[in-house]
Amino acid sequence: MADVKEKVQAEELDDDEKGKEDENWYQNAVRNADLADYSPVKGCMVIKPYGYALWENIQRALDKMIKDTGHQNAYFPLFIPESFLQKEKEHVEGFAPECAVVTHGGGKKLEEPLIVRPTSETIINFMFAKWVQSWRDLPLLINQWANVVRWEMRTRLFLRTTEFLWQEGHTAHATPEEAEEETKKMLEVYKVLAEEWLALPVLTGRKTENERFRGAVHTYCIEAMMRDGKALQAGTSHNLGQNFSKAFGIQFQSQAGPLAHAYQTSWGVSTRLVGAIVLGHGDEKGLILPPKLAPYQVVIVPIYKTDEEKQTVLARCREIEAQFKDRIRVHLDDRDQHTPGYKFNHWEVRGVPLRLNIGPKDVANNVVEIARRDTGEKIRGVSQDGLADYLTKLLDDVQKALFERALKFRSEHTHKAANYDEFKKIIENNGFIEAHWCKDGECELAIKDETKATIRCLPFNFEPKQGKCVRCEKPTDQVVVFARAY
Amino acid sequence: MADVKEKVQAEELDDDEKGKEDENWYQNAVRNADLADYSPVKGCMVIKPYGYALWENIQRALDKMIKDTGHQNAYFPLFIPESFLQKEKEHVEGFAPECAVVTHGGGKKLEEPLIVRPTSETIINFMFAKWVQSWRDLPLLINQWANVVRWEMRTRLFLRTTEFLWQEGHTAHATPEEAEEETKKMLEVYKVLAEEWLALPVLTGRKTENERFRGAVHTYCIEAMMRDGKALQAGTSHNLGQNFSKAFGIQFQSQAGPLAHAYQTSWGVSTRLVGAIVLGHGDEKGLILPPKLAPYQVVIVPIYKTDEEKQTVLARCREIEAQFKDRIRVHLDDRDQHTPGYKFNHWEVRGVPLRLNIGPKDVANNVVEIARRDTGEKIRGVSQDGLADYLTKLLDDVQKALFERALKFRSEHTHKAANYDEFKKIIENNGFIEAHWCKDGECELAIKDETKATIRCLPFNFEPKQGKCVRCEKPTDQVVVFARAY
Repeated sequence: MADVKEKVQAEELDDDEKGKEDENWYQNAVRNADLADYSPVKGCMVIKPYGYALWENIQRALDKMIKDTGHQNAYFPLFIPESFLQKEKEHVEGFAPECAVVTHGGGKKLEEPLIVRPTSETIINFMFAKWVQSWRDLPLLINQWANVVRWEMRTRLFLRTTEFLWQEGHTAHATPEEAEEETKKMLEVYKVLAEEWLALPVLTGRKTENERFRGAVHTYCIEAMMRDGKALQAGTSHNLGQNFSKAFGIQFQSQAGPLAHAYQTSWGVSTRLVGAIVLGHGDEKGLILPPKLAPYQVVIVPIYKTDEEKQTVLARCREIEAQFKDRIRVHLDDRDQHTPGYKFNHWEVRGVPLRLNIGPKDVANNVVEIARRDTGEKIRGVSQDGLADYLTKLLDDVQKALFERALKFRSEHTHKAANYDEFKKIIENNGFIEAHWCKDGECELAIKDETKATIRCLPFNFEPKQGKCVRCEKPTDQVVVFARAY
Repeated sequence: MADVKEKVQAEELDDDEKGKEDENWYQNAVRNADLADYSPVKGCMVIKPYGYALWENIQRALDKMIKDTGHQNAYFPLFIPESFLQKEKEHVEGFAPECAVVTHGGGKKLEEPLIVRPTSETIINFMFAKWVQSWRDLPLLINQWANVVRWEMRTRLFLRTTEFLWQEGHTAHATPEEAEEETKKMLEVYKVLAEEWLALPVLTGRKTENERFRGAVHTYCIEAMMRDGKALQAGTSHNLGQNFSKAFGIQFQSQAGPLAHAYQTSWGVSTRLVGAIVLGHGDEKGLILPPKLAPYQVVIVPIYKTDEEKQTVLARCREIEAQFKDRIRVHLDDRDQHTPGYKFNHWEVRGVPLRLNIGPKDVANNVVEIARRDTGEKIRGVSQDGLADYLTKLLDDVQKALFERALKFRSEHTHKAANYDEFKKIIENNGFIEAHWCKDGECELAIKDETKATIRCLPFNFEPKQGKCVRCEKPTDQVVVFARAY
């Protein structure tokens, strides 16, 4: 095994060598919390049970919203014939360099190589062409939960991995208006997921031409601010126009009679959202999880010294757990080999929102002590009666407080830059910068080159306003948001 | 697109050319019910929304049982370094011929080819070796929901496809007894899934040496009988002994002190179970779904002629739907372009357990007509009041009736064969044959060669009984179950 173990270590070192404090903080936070581990396959991670439970909670919340908006889940092949990728010119240019290619199957060289899906527009739209015949078949609203592979040189657990898990929605519509409405509707679903479940406020807006999905007419996104002031693209929704329907022949008999090409969308979020939670809420101790997604919302730590105390305290802990375990995800940490101090730390680095400490005196006084992970606050003398309601309310408060704190943080780290010197000074400390931009892609790329900042989006809620491009000073009415990003 | 479309058709023909009636029935049942479709990638299918909804219901039921028995979900890489597969000698012999191989990534030839996982023992046990240090880390109880790829020459939707979806459990234990207990416990979970959810009675038992999972010490299985009398292996649970822990170095400090290799298990069921439902319950009209797994348990078909009737009937249908839609998965088929007769057929081929027909007279009389898919029986004049309870009870009855019918069918198609002539005559009509076997693998293979029947299992509940091998007539006390199988 020596050779493979060395490879793993080499990758770990490679990932660490950037040596930045934030980087180390993130890697440590993820690994100390047991969310994920490096794998022996370059760029691929192992999602450990605690990380996967978090992902399952995200999935459950989002899957319900996807179904409630009329979409159905389906499953399409992992492999895509190489020739399919060629059919949409921009698309192949965007994805070909990142592809993993299967050349052999069943002991033989394949006639045509198969691409491990980097995204499924091509294979799904090939099927749509078979399924869509008439306007009555539209809209076609499909979602897929799947793994995808994009070859990455520099990887970071959850944030950028060669293989990742995601959902990808794919829809076909009779009119461009319906496709545009769908694109925006699903972006709104992502915003709700980010803000109400992940407790992370997000900007919504359009990507620039340079940042657009290859094959889309335009791409919308949600952008969150991390605790270091950097931006993280947390989800995208693409209006594909007729690009793929023309490439794959998705035609339908329109209600008016003539054949027409469908208008399409696609949209996705991924296991990257787990990274967003870590980077969006964490502190020096590690994770802080939003209660609505936390695998354990409450952990109970019994405190005792003697065997007699242990009996009494554990018995009461079990009674307390039973009070609310049908309403709240709770875990009683009854491990005997660890001290309470060890357990406090264990659950703190894992970001459990609330910890109940229960010792002999608490048993005698019929109370518990509650420790809030987000504020560090200790609430003493909370009655053991009616704990289910008390904790439900408190978890709700924590959820809101996390969102408010993130919103305040974003607001404090969002600046305006009147000129390029100011821009360059501000960006050194990260954060968002609202500034005018001339709408020229060259100017955008020069800014990226000179400052590492990119245009995160052309926000929906910004009104046109006369001004000068922050770099080239050409007159423009376009205000955009710049940031350094993950 | 011409070339790919031709390929798809070629595959369809290829699959059909066996020309058997049962084959055609199955392919038609699956496709008419909109469960799945052929894909342009050889051997891979597209699981359509109705089929995927069925799979999601199976997943939900099984996932709960897996978690209730103490297992945690996790996710491991899709790719396995080729050298990993070599580490367990039998395992590589079993799987290497079926592998899909990635040789290029990110535009470059890879130093070491990557195998698309055919099963994950190797990659998971590599990780277990990192995670398991002490007896306190055991048992390690992990499950993964994933896609896997095994190159298949002859494929059938759901039953045998190159890519399929499944769960694979992987566990490590301190003692051989615990591993054996786990292997049997999970087989029991599969039995409950098959019998209580799929409504399919299953035999449980051990596989012969020839049929054992490559790399396992022994393999247990559940075997169901399909409506044509053939057997279908519906799930397997493997006791891996120390084969993989020795190959991957999973060692732990035992409670007594010295280092020891862990004892392991793995177990899985797949999208094949969707095929089992189709083949296990279907009739000449198509699918018959067990209510506990049916995407729609009840479909409401409004019947009207005039516009006025339509108003009245649809309004009442919506009221009725609202009565129980929080307890029962119900769909109101309010499509205007189709006749009731079209809709009856539409939902029959899709196997919906109960259909409510509601016309103007039913509205006037405050009743509904209920059609049972399993028996074809029509129940007239059922009061619209208290329908939620009535339907809940009736769905429960249908679930039980399906199981009883399948059990009766299996009993009627299970025979004893006293000698080989009898055996060969019986097997021509399929069904299970209980017969003595000499425990010689050569004899087993000769029977397979001569009759296409295989030993499905050495059943747990069969007592040893003196007799003669059905083929070679050597004395033996081993009674086994033979059948032709999918």
